[in-house]
Amino acid sequence: RINSARLWDSLEEMALIGPGVAGGCNRQTLTDADSEGRHLFQRWCEAAGMTMGVDTMGNMFATRAGTDPEALPVYMGSHLDTQPTGGKYDGVLGVLGALEVVRTMNDLGVKTRRPIVVTNWTNEEGARFAPAMLASGVFAGIHTEEYAKGRRDLEGKVFGEELARIGWVGDEKVGARKMHAMLELHIEQGPILEAEGKTIGVVTHGQGLWWLEITLTGKDAHTGSTPMHMRVNAGLGMARITERVHQIAMSHQPNAVGAVGQVKVFPNSRNVIPGKVVFTVDIRSPEQGKLDAMKAEVIRAAQAVAKELGLGCEIEDVGHFDPVTFDPGLVGVVRGAAERLGYSHMDIVSGAGHDACWINRVAPTVMVMCPCVDGLSHNEAEAISPEWAAAGTDVLLHAALEVAEV
Amino acid sequence: RINSARLWDSLEEMALIGPGVAGGCNRQTLTDADSEGRHLFQRWCEAAGMTMGVDTMGNMFATRAGTDPEALPVYMGSHLDTQPTGGKYDGVLGVLGALEVVRTMNDLGVKTRRPIVVTNWTNEEGARFAPAMLASGVFAGIHTEEYAKGRRDLEGKVFGEELARIGWVGDEKVGARKMHAMLELHIEQGPILEAEGKTIGVVTHGQGLWWLEITLTGKDAHTGSTPMHMRVNAGLGMARITERVHQIAMSHQPNAVGAVGQVKVFPNSRNVIPGKVVFTVDIRSPEQGKLDAMKAEVIRAAQAVAKELGLGCEIEDVGHFDPVTFDPGLVGVVRGAAERLGYSHMDIVSGAGHDACWINRVAPTVMVMCPCVDGLSHNEAEAISPEWAAAGTDVLLHAALEVAEV
Ligand SMILES: NC(=O)NCCC(=O)O
Ligand SMILES: NC(=O)NCCC(=O)O
Repeated sequence: RINSARLWDSLEEMALIGPGVAGGCNRQTLTDADSEGRHLFQRWCEAAGMTMGVDTMGNMFATRAGTDPEALPVYMGSHLDTQPTGGKYDGVLGVLGALEVVRTMNDLGVKTRRPIVVTNWTNEEGARFAPAMLASGVFAGIHTEEYAKGRRDLEGKVFGEELARIGWVGDEKVGARKMHAMLELHIEQGPILEAEGKTIGVVTHGQGLWWLEITLTGKDAHTGSTPMHMRVNAGLGMARITERVHQIAMSHQPNAVGAVGQVKVFPNSRNVIPGKVVFTVDIRSPEQGKLDAMKAEVIRAAQAVAKELGLGCEIEDVGHFDPVTFDPGLVGVVRGAAERLGYSHMDIVSGAGHDACWINRVAPTVMVMCPCVDGLSHNEAEAISPEWAAAGTDVLLHAALEVAEV
Repeated sequence: RINSARLWDSLEEMALIGPGVAGGCNRQTLTDADSEGRHLFQRWCEAAGMTMGVDTMGNMFATRAGTDPEALPVYMGSHLDTQPTGGKYDGVLGVLGALEVVRTMNDLGVKTRRPIVVTNWTNEEGARFAPAMLASGVFAGIHTEEYAKGRRDLEGKVFGEELARIGWVGDEKVGARKMHAMLELHIEQGPILEAEGKTIGVVTHGQGLWWLEITLTGKDAHTGSTPMHMRVNAGLGMARITERVHQIAMSHQPNAVGAVGQVKVFPNSRNVIPGKVVFTVDIRSPEQGKLDAMKAEVIRAAQAVAKELGLGCEIEDVGHFDPVTFDPGLVGVVRGAAERLGYSHMDIVSGAGHDACWINRVAPTVMVMCPCVDGLSHNEAEAISPEWAAAGTDVLLHAALEVAEV
């Protein structure tokens, strides 16, 4: 079993970097706080006897040598970046849990045939630079590095420039590494495990997602002196489409969600009818058919609303992935480990996207989940118990021992 | 008649200060650009032989002496501040038109019994600091100076500190001046004069307004892993209320308008269900009964939407004024001047709020309007013809000659 107190201390220490305003974290990708978190992680890895490699997307790979120099390594990890008002465990548990697995192996003097690599993927959240899982996506060949490096945040800052600014452009070619397998531990970020009273989620599938960015163009005009019939109100269009996204997700229950998360109104003045609104739509389903249907319905609804209000409408695809099926062999390994360790467990589908969803395209992959209080995540109040963290990390340890071959 | 070319040159010169991004202006109140515009206006007034006084709210009063030292002055003016993406004429024409009236009187060697005071009112727009017509409101005793000076912009900057920073806190007590009358020239900011083919609007009334700021509080949560029935989505609430505001205004046609102009979503991240949204509602009518009914309906609708979605809901009154009836005697003077000058004219109701609406509470007041292209205002593309500007200013001149007694 892993050292639960040491794991918890590391989680708490990391959370001091980029603290939030309400007990959580604001350690958004490619900020100074992100860089500081990376340095701490690197120091911890080196103290655990690992060697750090960094690729040109800033992905970090800390290697613990195996006994067979020819054997492909087993990767474990997640991400250290957070939402602007994020929690202390989303992603972080997956990275520091993997580090704890190595520390425990060191304590016990365990050697594995395959090397073990603990990974921190850059910009998993996609909050600052869309899409999410950007750097694991480049690693898996989904995006070009050029595309990723050209992404811009809300202030217009460019991904590639920000990565260079914080000093984390490595020298490895992205995606050059070959993996035997990848294991990702993550908090559930949803309410199911807690509701079912299970400590471990054996993740069999991940739901698919579409992120759309809609730009509506109307006409800035005076809110007082412009008669109702002369208005071309982009804000009203945004409101109608926000409602339609909700209705479309509701009409596909169960196994479908949808919401508008980000809204920018121009010029955003009380007495100006909005001439332009840019906003984002997030729709998801574990069923490919539903996902495709919802996307088509959202686009049709947006175009219809734009037409009825006389608005210009541009819809940009800013990220998507299909529903994911994790490697059945590895799923069996995780289930078996939970079983042997005596943790209550169930199979679940991940509601969120994860780096493992992209890496699944280039290597056998699986995820382990532990509950979080009230299913709350992407919220500073996100909480887990030390026992849940330890249980998930124990399962990760036992799966790793099996897959990396003791 | 006034000197049309000189007026136009002054309008163009002022527009160079705080230029917009699309041919208009961004000379928001209490910015460096506002200060620079004030200095230019002061230089012009002094060159025209006037003496400048400034009150503690930054209101500027340039006096041309009358022949009777006992006589109360006639005030003319408007505002030099603009929307963030505003036009070159909204407000500015009223100030520089009044200056042109004085310049023309100087050219002609005309003396009036009453002094004439050309005024620039601070923060008419209310875009940066709500409510609109803030400093004329203090002058008229509607707001206390303390209330006005404590208003904050979106960044949290405080009105009083910003006024001091740009160096325009004067020494006059606000509202100490007594007025014989106030005349305000303004562009219509609506489509009626152009549609009716009239050059002059004789403003008999102004519509009343309510500005509300609504804060909805839900729960930040993950857009992917939070089931639909567990969401407390403040963004959806904002969308529903935005639609309801529109429907309420539509149900009171004619003589009613309503819109949401400003929206701030928190945390404003693609994959976070909005936990908080703050947005503004602007509803107006020239009929007191409709205005009151609409306000009650908007509040009821907001509370109902909040209840159905489980949201917290706070509604703040950030500014209102009742429908205004301008001084019938002065309205007759303006109508007569337009008639004598041979300009086509009609009586109209102002759709926008103006400093004259507040000053009307403490002195007989009237407004003169000229058309603007497509009724477009609060938009950088706002446009008027030099002929319209000159016609409005001619009417202002002739009304002033009569009211100030040649
Ligand atoms: N795990 C997680 O929150 N990832 C961000 C991408 C997503 O929104 O699903
Ligand atoms: N004239 C003008 O645009 N004033 C600002 C106050 C309002 O929104 O009516």
